[in-house]
This record gives sequence, C-alpha cells and structure tokens, in this order.
Amino acid sequence: MVTPQGTALLDVAIEDGVIAAVGRDLGGTADETIDATGLLVFPGIIDAHTHPVYLDDLESLPVTAAYGGVTTVIHFAYAKPGEGLLDTIHRFREEGEAGSVLDFALHGGLFDPANQSHEVPDAIEAGVTSHKMFMTYAKLGWMTDDYQLMRTMDILGTAGGMAMVHAENGLATDYLQDKTNEAGADPQDVFVATRPAILEAEAIHRAIAMAQAGDCPLYIVHMTAELGLAEVARARALGYRVYAETCPQYLTLTEDALRTQGPLVKIGPPLRAESDRLALWRGLADGTLDTIASDHAAKAKTREDDFFEAPYGSPQAETMLTLAYHGGVNGGWLSPARLAQVMCENPARIFGLYPKKGAILPGSDADLVLYDPTAAVRIEHASQHSNASYTAYEGMEVLGKPVLSMQRGRILLKDGQLHASAGNGQFLRTSSGRVALSTLQTPTAGAS
Amino acid sequence: MVTPQGTALLDVAIEDGVIAAVGRDLGGTADETIDATGLLVFPGIIDAHTHPVYLDDLESLPVTAAYGGVTTVIHFAYAKPGEGLLDTIHRFREEGEAGSVLDFALHGGLFDPANQSHEVPDAIEAGVTSHKMFMTYAKLGWMTDDYQLMRTMDILGTAGGMAMVHAENGLATDYLQDKTNEAGADPQDVFVATRPAILEAEAIHRAIAMAQAGDCPLYIVHMTAELGLAEVARARALGYRVYAETCPQYLTLTEDALRTQGPLVKIGPPLRAESDRLALWRGLADGTLDTIASDHAAKAKTREDDFFEAPYGSPQAETMLTLAYHGGVNGGWLSPARLAQVMCENPARIFGLYPKKGAILPGSDADLVLYDPTAAVRIEHASQHSNASYTAYEGMEVLGKPVLSMQRGRILLKDGQLHASAGNGQFLRTSSGRVALSTLQTPTAGAS
Amino acid sequence: MVTPQGTALLDVAIEDGVIAAVGRDLGGTADETIDATGLLVFPGIIDAHTHPVYLDDLESLPVTAAYGGVTTVIHFAYAKPGEGLLDTIHRFREEGEAGSVLDFALHGGLFDPANQSHEVPDAIEAGVTSHKMFMTYAKLGWMTDDYQLMRTMDILGTAGGMAMVHAENGLATDYLQDKTNEAGADPQDVFVATRPAILEAEAIHRAIAMAQAGDCPLYIVHMTAELGLAEVARARALGYRVYAETCPQYLTLTEDALRTQGPLVKIGPPLRAESDRLALWRGLADGTLDTIASDHAAKAKTREDDFFEAPYGSPQAETMLTLAYHGGVNGGWLSPARLAQVMCENPARIFGLYPKKGAILPGSDADLVLYDPTAAVRIEHASQHSNASYTAYEGMEVLGKPVLSMQRGRILLKDGQLHASAGNGQFLRTSSGRVALSTLQTPTAGAS
Amino acid sequence: MVTPQGTALLDVAIEDGVIAAVGRDLGGTADETIDATGLLVFPGIIDAHTHPVYLDDLESLPVTAAYGGVTTVIHFAYAKPGEGLLDTIHRFREEGEAGSVLDFALHGGLFDPANQSHEVPDAIEAGVTSHKMFMTYAKLGWMTDDYQLMRTMDILGTAGGMAMVHAENGLATDYLQDKTNEAGADPQDVFVATRPAILEAEAIHRAIAMAQAGDCPLYIVHMTAELGLAEVARARALGYRVYAETCPQYLTLTEDALRTQGPLVKIGPPLRAESDRLALWRGLADGTLDTIASDHAAKAKTREDDFFEAPYGSPQAETMLTLAYHGGVNGGWLSPARLAQVMCENPARIFGLYPKKGAILPGSDADLVLYDPTAAVRIEHASQHSNASYTAYEGMEVLGKPVLSMQRGRILLKDGQLHASAGNGQFLRTSSGRVALSTLQTPTAGAS
Repeated sequence: MVTPQGTALLDVAIEDGVIAAVGRDLGGTADETIDATGLLVFPGIIDAHTHPVYLDDLESLPVTAAYGGVTTVIHFAYAKPGEGLLDTIHRFREEGEAGSVLDFALHGGLFDPANQSHEVPDAIEAGVTSHKMFMTYAKLGWMTDDYQLMRTMDILGTAGGMAMVHAENGLATDYLQDKTNEAGADPQDVFVATRPAILEAEAIHRAIAMAQAGDCPLYIVHMTAELGLAEVARARALGYRVYAETCPQYLTLTEDALRTQGPLVKIGPPLRAESDRLALWRGLADGTLDTIASDHAAKAKTREDDFFEAPYGSPQAETMLTLAYHGGVNGGWLSPARLAQVMCENPARIFGLYPKKGAILPGSDADLVLYDPTAAVRIEHASQHSNASYTAYEGMEVLGKPVLSMQRGRILLKDGQLHASAGNGQFLRTSSGRVALSTLQTPTAGAS
Repeated sequence: MVTPQGTALLDVAIEDGVIAAVGRDLGGTADETIDATGLLVFPGIIDAHTHPVYLDDLESLPVTAAYGGVTTVIHFAYAKPGEGLLDTIHRFREEGEAGSVLDFALHGGLFDPANQSHEVPDAIEAGVTSHKMFMTYAKLGWMTDDYQLMRTMDILGTAGGMAMVHAENGLATDYLQDKTNEAGADPQDVFVATRPAILEAEAIHRAIAMAQAGDCPLYIVHMTAELGLAEVARARALGYRVYAETCPQYLTLTEDALRTQGPLVKIGPPLRAESDRLALWRGLADGTLDTIASDHAAKAKTREDDFFEAPYGSPQAETMLTLAYHGGVNGGWLSPARLAQVMCENPARIFGLYPKKGAILPGSDADLVLYDPTAAVRIEHASQHSNASYTAYEGMEVLGKPVLSMQRGRILLKDGQLHASAGNGQFLRTSSGRVALSTLQTPTAGAS
Repeated sequence: MVTPQGTALLDVAIEDGVIAAVGRDLGGTADETIDATGLLVFPGIIDAHTHPVYLDDLESLPVTAAYGGVTTVIHFAYAKPGEGLLDTIHRFREEGEAGSVLDFALHGGLFDPANQSHEVPDAIEAGVTSHKMFMTYAKLGWMTDDYQLMRTMDILGTAGGMAMVHAENGLATDYLQDKTNEAGADPQDVFVATRPAILEAEAIHRAIAMAQAGDCPLYIVHMTAELGLAEVARARALGYRVYAETCPQYLTLTEDALRTQGPLVKIGPPLRAESDRLALWRGLADGTLDTIASDHAAKAKTREDDFFEAPYGSPQAETMLTLAYHGGVNGGWLSPARLAQVMCENPARIFGLYPKKGAILPGSDADLVLYDPTAAVRIEHASQHSNASYTAYEGMEVLGKPVLSMQRGRILLKDGQLHASAGNGQFLRTSSGRVALSTLQTPTAGAS
Repeated sequence: MVTPQGTALLDVAIEDGVIAAVGRDLGGTADETIDATGLLVFPGIIDAHTHPVYLDDLESLPVTAAYGGVTTVIHFAYAKPGEGLLDTIHRFREEGEAGSVLDFALHGGLFDPANQSHEVPDAIEAGVTSHKMFMTYAKLGWMTDDYQLMRTMDILGTAGGMAMVHAENGLATDYLQDKTNEAGADPQDVFVATRPAILEAEAIHRAIAMAQAGDCPLYIVHMTAELGLAEVARARALGYRVYAETCPQYLTLTEDALRTQGPLVKIGPPLRAESDRLALWRGLADGTLDTIASDHAAKAKTREDDFFEAPYGSPQAETMLTLAYHGGVNGGWLSPARLAQVMCENPARIFGLYPKKGAILPGSDADLVLYDPTAAVRIEHASQHSNASYTAYEGMEVLGKPVLSMQRGRILLKDGQLHASAGNGQFLRTSSGRVALSTLQTPTAGAS
C-alpha cells in the first residue's frame, strides 16, 4: 500500500463505501476480497484541472479520466455569454450529477470578472471556492486586467475563497507575437520565443504580490519553467499561501515536440526547454510544486492544421498517472509515496476535500487504485477513450498502469473496462482553500 | 579631497576649465588659489531627476539646485499635447541653453509611448538616451500598459538606449483607492495603505522582467521600500543591468509626516515606514542602490489644500546634498567617499557623462563642491530659492553645507551667492547607458 | 531493472561472468534464463566499511554479508603490534584470497601513522589507496594527533591516495567523560551527552581543513548527525573533494535504543536524536551523503555486560540492504534508483572499482541482486549468519529482501542458501580515489 | 562629536572627572572650556590587546599607547614559571597601579591551563573575567591541547567568564614547517605558506564548537583572513556568543611586507594576502568583526636578525588609531561613528566596562579624544615612544591624528606631550563577558 506516509504491506477493509480499517493481516470475514499481491495500492487519483467544454464534456471527460486511474475530477465551470456565475455553477453541477461517472467538484472559470466577481461570495456558499482568471489571451477577450485581478482577489480573500491564475503576461507576449507576425515569421517557429519563460515568471510574481495585497490564497495552474519555480520558492520561504501545479505534458515533452507534432502540441503556456522539464521534476521532488493535474482540454485539431489558427489544448487525463509514475518513479525523481502526495493528498487538502478524498484512512471514501508497476504499456490514441483523435504521446513506451480502481467501495475500472455508469458520480463541495502550508505534504515529511 | 576612491589631503590644479593635475603639494604658480583647509572637496554634484515644468522651470530650477551644491542636472523632457518626441527634446535643449545656469542633460518623459516610441532612435541620436515611462497614474492618462512597455523596451534595447520607470502597479492601486473612496475614507488617511510597498515591488519586478525580455538596461527612479530593494538585489545577483535610485525625501521622512504636513508631502510613491527609511540607507551602504537624486517637482499647493485634489511632488534639489550628508555621513551610514559615489560618479557613469562629470581626474570638467561638514544649518523655505512657497523640512536642523562650488573652473556658488548667470550652462549628450555593472562604484570597492 | 539512472523493464545477458548486453527483449539463446518478473534487479551491493578482525573474520564476515545481498566488501586492514603496513596488507590479501566467498578490496587502518605512513606510497602501489585514521579513542591508543594527521594527508595527497577519518574530537570528549565519571554518573546515561554532535561536526570540519591544506581527497565514515551534514554540504559547495557515508544503524535507531539494549548498541559515534536520524535520510535524498555502508564489527558482548567496559561495535552487514530499502524506499525518502546510487555506483566510483563493480553495463562484472520488495521479513539474530549472538534489530518487521544474487555470473545466493565456497572471492585493487565530484550520482541526476 | 550613534555638533560638560551633560549650546559657566571646532571628539580609545612583558612594560606600554590616543588598555597577565594565576594577577595589578599612566584592566594569559584553570573562578572574583589560551606555539610550550581547552571552557562557562583564543592549528602548522625545514627552504620564504589561512579558520571553528559544548562566550583575537571571517559569520548567524577582533597590522600590511622588512614583521598569525586585508575592512564594515585592538608586543629584534630565531610581535599601540582612521574612514570603509563602535563601545561592552568606558554619556568617565582628521602625519619610529627601535610603518604618510585626550576629565595628551604621570591609572574590574549580541553595535544600527 502506498500512502503519502510511505509504502507498507497492509490490508484495507471497506464497508458501505468507506474505509473501515487499515492494518496488518486484518481478520474477520469479508463478502469479497481482492488480492493485491505484487501491486501498489494508491488512494484514488484526483485530477484537479479539467475542461469539460470541448470534445470531451461533463459526461465523456470523466470516462477517459477514469480509464487512466482518476477517481475524482475538478472541472472548470465556464459561463455562456451573458450567463451569471451562479447560473453557470448550477448548470455544471446538474449536468455532472446527471452524466458523470466520477465524483466531481468545480472551480469557477472567470472570463469577465468585472461582471462576475460580485457573485463570488454566493458561489463559495454554493460549494465552489476556487476561481481562476487568465492573465493572458487578451485577443480572445479572456484576459483579466490588474484592476479586476486586484478586485477579485480582494473579494475572494474576504469571502474565504482562493484565486487561481493562468500566469503569463498577455500584453507583453502579444507585442512579441505581433512583431514577429509583421516580420513574416512562421508562427510555429516563434511560438515559444514569443512567450518566454521570464514573462510567465513575471505574471506568477505579480499574481503573488496582488494575492498578498488582497490577503487571498493563490493556486498557480500549469507551471512550466524553472524561472517560475524560483518565484514560488521565494514566496513560500516568506510564508505566503501559494500553491503550485504542473502537468504531465510539461514533465514529459519539450519544445522539440513542436517540430514533429505541430498544432497537436500547441498549448498555453508552451512546452519549454529540457532544462525546464528537469526543473519541474526537481520541483516536485523538493516540494516547490504541490500537485500534478492534467489540464485536459480535448480540442478538435489535426497535425496538418494552420498553426496560428489552431486552438490551444490537448487530451491528457487518461495518460496522466502512467506518465507521472513512469517519469517520476521509474525515472528516479519521486518515491511512490511522494507521487501519492502530489496526485492524491495535496490536491485534496488544497481544495478542502481531505480526508474524504486523497487518503486511505478509516472514514475516507473507499477510492483506491491498484497499480501494476511492471506492466509494459505502449500509448496509442486508438486505445484511449477521449473523443479527441490524437494523443501527444503516440507510440511512447512506458512501464506501469492502473489495473483496478474503485470509487466509494465499488469497482470502477477492472480488466480494462469501466464498471460504472453515467450519473454514478457525486458533486463535491470544495471548502475554505485556507490549508496551512505546514499541513501540505512535502518530500521531507516521509519516514518509515 | 573626497573622491569615490577615498579621502586624502590633495591639491587640485585647474586650467581652462578642466582639471590639469591632482597631487600632493602641487608646485608651480597659479593665477588664483583657493584654500580648502578644513573643508571637504567633492566632485560636482549631479541631480539626475528633475522636473522643470512646474513652478520651477528650465531657468529657475537650476538656480535652486545650484544653491544646494548641484552642478549638473538631468531634466525630464515632457511633450506638450500633440508634440513629437524630437520636437520636445529640441525645445527643452534650446530653452535650457538660453536660460540654464547649470550644465544639463535630458531624459525623455514618455506619456504616450504608442505615439512617441517610434522616435526613440532619433532621440538617442540627438543625445537623449534614457526614457521614462509611468506604470501608474492611469487616471491622469500617464500610464503605459504592458504592451507599450514591452514595445518601448524592445526599441530602446535595440537602439542602445535605457528604460526608466516609475514603478507602481497603477491599476491595482486604483482599485484599492476606489474601494476606500466608496467606503467614505479620508483620502489622506488611506493614502499610503492604498499604495502598498508590495505593489511597488511588483512593478519593479515586472519592469525588470520585461527589460530582460527586451535586452534593455533599466533605471528605476525613486525607490522607497525594503520590498523593492529585494527585487533589485535579486536582479543584480543574476547579472541584470538594473540601476536603482532613491531620493532625500524617502531617506529623511516617513509616513508620519503626512499627519503634520498633509498635501505638502503628497508624493508618488508615498512616504513609507521607518523600517523602509532605514532599509534605503542600508541599500545605499551595501550597494543595492546606486544613486541619490531629488525628484524635484515644485508644485503649487498649501498645507490647507484638499488632499485628494492636491498635486503630487515637492521641491527637493536645494536641500538634497545637505540632507544626504547629514543623514548619511553624520548618521553613520555612509563614508564621504560613498556619498561621492552615489551623487557624482555613479549617475555620471550610468548616463554616460563620466569622466567629464562625476570625477576629480585630470581632463575632467573642473566641477567642484567645497563642503563644510561642521556648519550648523536650519532649513527654512524663506531662505531657499525655489519658486515653491514651502519645504518639507521646515525648521529641521542639520550639520554641513556647501560653501563654494565651481563649474568648468569658474566660481558658481560662493559666500551664499550664485556668481553665474542664465545661459552659462551647456547641453550634455548622454551616451549609451550600457555601463557594465562591474564599473559602478559599490561600497566594497574602497581602499586607502 | 533498477540502475542509478532509473527503473526500466529490461533483460540482461551474461557471458563468461561479464554483462554482455542490456536491452528490451534480448533475443538469442541462453544456456540458462532467470525470470525476474515482479522483482527488482540491482547491481551487486558494495559494503565499503567492514571490520574482519573480531567474531567475524576474513572468511566468516563475507558470508554474513552475502546473505544480506552484498557482493563486494571493502575491509579495513589493521596491523598486529609491530607489523608494517605492507605486511598487514599482504596478510589480509592472502587470507582473503584463501577464505573469502566475496570479492574484496582493502582500506589501510592506521593506528600509528607516525610509524606507518611512510609506507603509504607502497600501499597505494599494492592496490590499497584509502587509509583511515581515528580522531578519537585516545585512551585506546588509537588516536592520531593533528601533526600526524596533517603529515599523512600530505603523503596521501602527494601519492594519489585518499584519507578516511573517524571524526570525533577525542580529547574533548575524553574530558567530558572524565568529568561525568568523577561525578559518579552512570556511563550509559551520559554516553551520548559526553560525545555531543557538535564535537563530531568539529572533527569533520578539522579533517576537511587539513585535507584541503594537504590537497588530499577525504572520505568521512559513519556520519551520524545533522550538524555534521552541514559541514559536508559547505565543503561540497566550495568544490572540496569530500565524500560522506552513513550506516543503517544511524538511519534506523536513535539514542532511545540505549535504554532497551544497553551495551549491544554501544557504538562510536553514538546513536543520536530522531531529528538527526531524519536528517541523514534527507542527506541521502538531497545528495549530501554519498554512500551507505555497514561498519560491521561483530564484537563479543551481551546486554548484561558492564556498559563502560563493553566494546564498541555491532554486526550490521546482513541487515544493511533490507533496512536501507525499507527505511529509504518504503519510507518515502529514496527511489530505488537513488538506493542503487548510494549502495552500488557511488562506492564503486569513490574507491575506483567502477564500472567493473557498481553498474549493470556491458563489460561490468555480472554482480546482480534480485530483490523482492513485497516480502515480509522479521529480523532475528537466530536466522542470521554472523558469529555474533545478537542483532540490534531483534524482532523488527520490514518489507523486502534479496532473493537471489550472483557474482561474476555465478549464483551466490538463492533460495536462502549460499551457493559459493570459501576462496571464490577475488582481491580488487582500488585506484586513485580522485573521482570528480561531478561524476558522483546525486539525486537530481535521474531522468527517465 | 562622534559617537557610536553618529556625528553631531554638540557640547560636553564635565564635572569631577565624569561627563555631566551632552547637548546643544550648553549654557552655564565652566572653569575651563576647550574649543573643538574643526575637530572630531571621540570617546576614549580602548586597546583591548596589549602585552606589557617585553621591551614595553606595565609602565612604558601605557605611555606609548597614550601618545596614540588610547585612554584604556587591557593587558594580558602572564605567569612567571611556577607562579599561580591569582598571584600573577595581583602582581600585574600592583605594578600597574604603581606605574601606569592609563586606566587598565587585565586578561588572564594561560600558558599552562592544566595547572592554572582551577584558579579561574577566583580570578573572575578578583575582576579578571577573560582568559586566553594558545592553540598554537607547541614548540614554545605554550599550546593548550583540546582536553585542557574543553576543560577550561567548561570552567569559564560555569563561572561566568569568557574564553579567548589565539586560533591556529599549531600541530598541523608545525608539520608544514618541519617539512620545509627538512627540505632546506628559507624560513622567511615559507613563513606564510606553512601557516595557511585554512588552518587559522580550522582553529576558529574548533574553538567555537568547544565553546558551544562548554556554554562559554568566546573572543577570537587577531583575526587575519577571509576564511576565518566566514566561520565567525556562520556562528553569529546561529546565535553563538562569539566576538572577533582584528589589528591594525592586518588591516594595513600584507605578506609583501616580509620581503622588505623581514623579521620586523614576523608576527603570528602571519600577514596575509591583499584579498584578506580587504576582507577584514569589509568585516568591520558589515559587522562580522567587532573590535580593533593592537596586539602590541614590543620585541627586541632588527631587520638583519635570523628570521627563524627572531621573536613574534611588534609595537602597534601608538599608531593604531591613526592607521584605523586613515585606512577605514579616509579609505571609504567606515564612518567615524562605526570607528567609535569598534574602538570604544564594543570593547567596553564585551569586557564589561560599559558605560563607564566607551561612551560619551552623562555618568561615563570623561575619557575623550579630540581628533584632527586633516592633519598630515608621517610615521617614523624616532618620533614614537615605544622602547622598540622600529615600527612596521616607517615613512608611511597618513591623514589625521589625535591632538588632545583626557582621562576622567584631566588632560592626558595635549600639544604632543603627555600631561599625566605614572600611577595616574586605575585598575578596572572586567565583568561578566556575557553581553547580548543584540546590544553590540553593528553598522546597520546607525541613524541620524
């Protein structure tokens, strides 16, 4: 059994969907017994960063995630034009309760804080505590300026919520892109250079400063670069409540993938240098990064599309656990216990789902993943379950895969098949977001 | 004689307005000899931050500065509505050559980079290398957004210029101010709290990041806070070409002065805490800060004015040297040699005037200041020469004052009177702004 | 397969005792095939710190080590009274070649450098590069004073050898012990307090300083305390060639064990606080510590012996790998790959045995250990193979054990039995000891 | 007036040998008035490191010191063969009271702690709190080994005293010297190389570790090297009560002086590199070093003597203040206020003489020094008052000298003559030595 506290040979007893006991050689009689010999038993995997609004929706996105060993998803709820924040949340909740195969929670996705943020206190009341703003994508009309960013953080800080940001300096990167466009450069060739890591680090620092000014906890999604890690490490050293996430794509691929896959790996922020990729693993190993999540956004595009017009995003949820285990544990960066910290306990703690989710403790939901660390896997989109027609990892060979998962004590994934149906999932209220940094699991916490 | 290299008993020989020799017991026959026994001899003081567009103009501002021991000023040239950047520079140069009692150089003051920055390369050609933008004052229409900031730094970096910024996050501080206004707070009471130091530090960091992205040297005017010093120190440790200035008002006063002087000390950024004031002295002592300049802006206002409507700025040039010497040298923070570094050599090096200005070396202009460190002085606006009707230091008693100065070998100040006339000053072209950090004087450079 | 570079599903082909190929699905026909499904395959474990001069000798010590998964030992060669250094080395080599079941190398153990160190260059010529001195145990007559320490490091540095030290300030700890003795304290009660960690850190720092003055690489045996780690980290940051070892006893037990086991855990340096034990794991995880070795010294004593008279030392080689795996990998501190770094590759590199030993690379000796990470083990001295009548871990339950090992392609350990005989082992010459720090494996080196 | 708090234009009123008032324009009628216009007024200078046992004795040493502006000396009291510690102290006190022109205190100088340390508690009772041991000079029979060092620190720590050490690893340097002697090297050529800075830093670290183990404050005399400063800075950062001194010779000269002056600059530790000299100034400027003292030891030797046989030491007290002012203040390293910290307040605080000595405060002894910072001085032994026939600074030209001093309100030095007679000095008891680090003056404490 792998928990954030270490690895041990233990039995787990489950009763009424909840963990009843954890121990050595548990006696008693069980209706059913699963032999996990030779397998690692993880707490259910939480994917805290999913976008169910493209090819994969509130029904199909949990399916592809569940095939990858995920048992809980936290979706971003985005408004339709003119829709109020609470209405959006209710719509996502209802559709999720009707169609989701997995338990799920929601983040607010604020495209227009000037007209949405006044509803934030009610959203928190409705169980949606964390709200994301974009510091980039001005040309798409998604960017929040510093006035509204400061205002929304002030509201969130006062109401007991948490801010999330996509951190890139959108106006500065727009200038760099316009300049290269005018000069006639190929957009794919200059894609990374016009979104340099220093302008991601800049936005991270700016968000941290405003979060401090607004006394608001902050969660930075999809960190990609060594320069950004330095900002987070500094803020943490000062005691600021800043949490940081990275994603499997930034841990696995580099900017070189643009040359072979083109639009399929157009994502924001962009893939970066090999030195950044290694720095992200180091950040997970040393505690600068708290979580891994997928940023799953199944966009319709092909390798042949026009790069400039192609949308940002890619399907990631189904391969997340396998890539994290292979790159992290087999790669020598993380122990299995540290992996359970960043994919189970930490997201549960940060978003207030702990210890219902993220733990194998008596009283926790019986969400478990049995993982075979020696299974050889070849990744192919054809055998995956996203509605997207591609994966960024086509043909890649890795070691290890989930062989069984359960949610609240019932089998979810077994023998390569899902054994649960749409509507099985429950809505989860997130809570305060004000987790003390000292309760977050960092790598030095482990002991036998 | 005090130079950036230390203090020694030396003679200076001057010929044709230029220093001919420096040495012990210089022989030969001089037409005229000045006995400086008991006095300190400094290189001419450079005030690199003056605004000759309010009560004190291109003719009267140099006069009040000269009475304070300054021998060179660098003015900000601000455009009239619709005026092009080069036209502005030519107008300031012509008026200065006609009326200035002191040698002077110019910085560009860009209120509208979208319409001005394309002229920056020509401005550099015309001898104006450094150009300032405002990251605040959005409500006055002066703020530059990150698109134009990135664009202008790119142009400056390419053309061999240097960016200067007033670093405060204007949109975030506007939100904080609007919120307190709506809540009915007294604007004076919340003046400092709505412009917190962390939002000054944020803008400093952002400017540094964009300057790096644009490969452009950066000079940060009027640093006020310990949090900002940390940003500069970090950038310097990374080898970034970032230079930092503070002003006598931030070294002498704290936010407490608002309670007694109200609108007279409404300046931007605001006066801060005593701990910040001490940190600025420490920053000058340890080399984090490079220069002291005055930010002289003689605005028309009285203590009884409405605080919210009162303009930002105050007269500072005439008291600058005396306050810096008293607070710094008598206060135990700086040696006289370090004072000469931050008020003479460093501004000359940063703006490309060295060794013509800022040094007592053979071949340098014979700009000298004889300073009596034991003279007791009581500061009163009535005995000063600014057109402003107040000083922020009324009644303050300090030790030390300039008793004689000369420019290019001719007496400028003597016996409390100026002995030069309007038009005596010459226009100085600034040059590359690309001074190596290793040539800047830092406190550890000194040795007997 | 676990290597210092990570974990992967690979085959190993062996021919004539040497690794012939490593790869995926190696074809061809083998005389014999071992199926390692479900097992981890490590390079042969090296125990670089053993004392074959007590209950376990040059024949029996390798046997107990081999049962624990060790395939190479490096013994300390101690002189008989009056015996010359080269004579000692030849004696140990001959007895080892006659009786050792494992390949072995030798360190010089210098009790009397004043009369031994002049033979150090010849010893290096004879294949014994590394030589240890004691900075403590003055009352046993073993302590080297700073004159001879400086002299021997100078000789070693010149001749291409490496110094090793037992680092405790023996004179200062003798004073503390004498003082408590005179005061009538129970020697067991004050055992740790009279050998405080700061006096171990002191000796570490002193040895480092003298090694630098003598331009001599330095290996510090059995580090026990957080204060000592700080000294090593500082020296490494300065680029000094300093290597550091810890032992399973310090990673597993604390001073609390003295209360229950008394003389059986009287070892030098002493067991320390829980915070030190955690710091040692952290030091292995972050690269401050390079190796784990056993300090196996099977002394004759019982729990009832007089504490003051009881000898220092305990049997450790057979439990070393199991305790390191359980505490380190199951405990969440180390990845299996990092364990292979500190128990295989690093000792091989430091003592010049690499890549013959310490690697699974074509051309390396086919020394392999197949490890079952899920086997439940209860440690009992009765089932161990040391001649000592006790173990410090009696009754402790851990997870994982070696199930098969081979040396130079021949089965050594299988089905709980040794399949090799005395004299099977070969003498290994150590070489320069001048490994570049940059080639040592540190935890950030890993990548998939 | 220069005080550790800064420089200001103030009057001092004295009554009955004690300072009665300090203020601006003190009124009232004085019997006598001294006009200090154009002069700096320092607190009386304390020389906390003098050896009155060679050419200059308890009567003549204070005379040469007084000519240099010193008003208080702290001598080392060394025993005659077989003399007890208390007897030594009484002898020094009686001879000093009979013949000293200056107030004086005493340190114990322990050549033989094994036979002296048991009297340490009585010595503290008798007013001698601080006791020095040598970690070098084994061949002279002066070295204390680690057993006695640990024992004496334990006794001092318990009794409320303070340890002082001459920190060099004497055994290691003896080996290096013996080796070069045997190789036939010129002793002067290898003098510095055989006493390398790393072995001074080693001993500093060792003394600090044992002082911590004995819970004893520690004062390190005559620091000479950058490596040693790092040890002190680290200990201070950990909150250890460690104080550090340097001397004018290490601040002024480098090893180059050996080539021109040979035996005259044979001192221990040796003069070092220019980079070390600069580091010492930096250490005074940044607070790592607390005091400047002279280490005055007027030994009989000439430039032509055999280097190996020549004794260690040189006359330093008379030039100390002038060299410190010229190198430190004129050299741009220190403000006058910082100089008053390291030569007046800090030694007074560390040795428990404050505020009787070391301050210009109402109630303090009226010990004052009037200093002319513009006086040109050429140093020549002929015009000095030591019984030594040389100075290490012959012919050196500096700026500044003391022109008047007084002790307890009476004129001591005036018009280049001493106006006090033998026996004028009083014995001063030192006290606990347990000054809090936070009360020591460091450079950042200054403010106007």
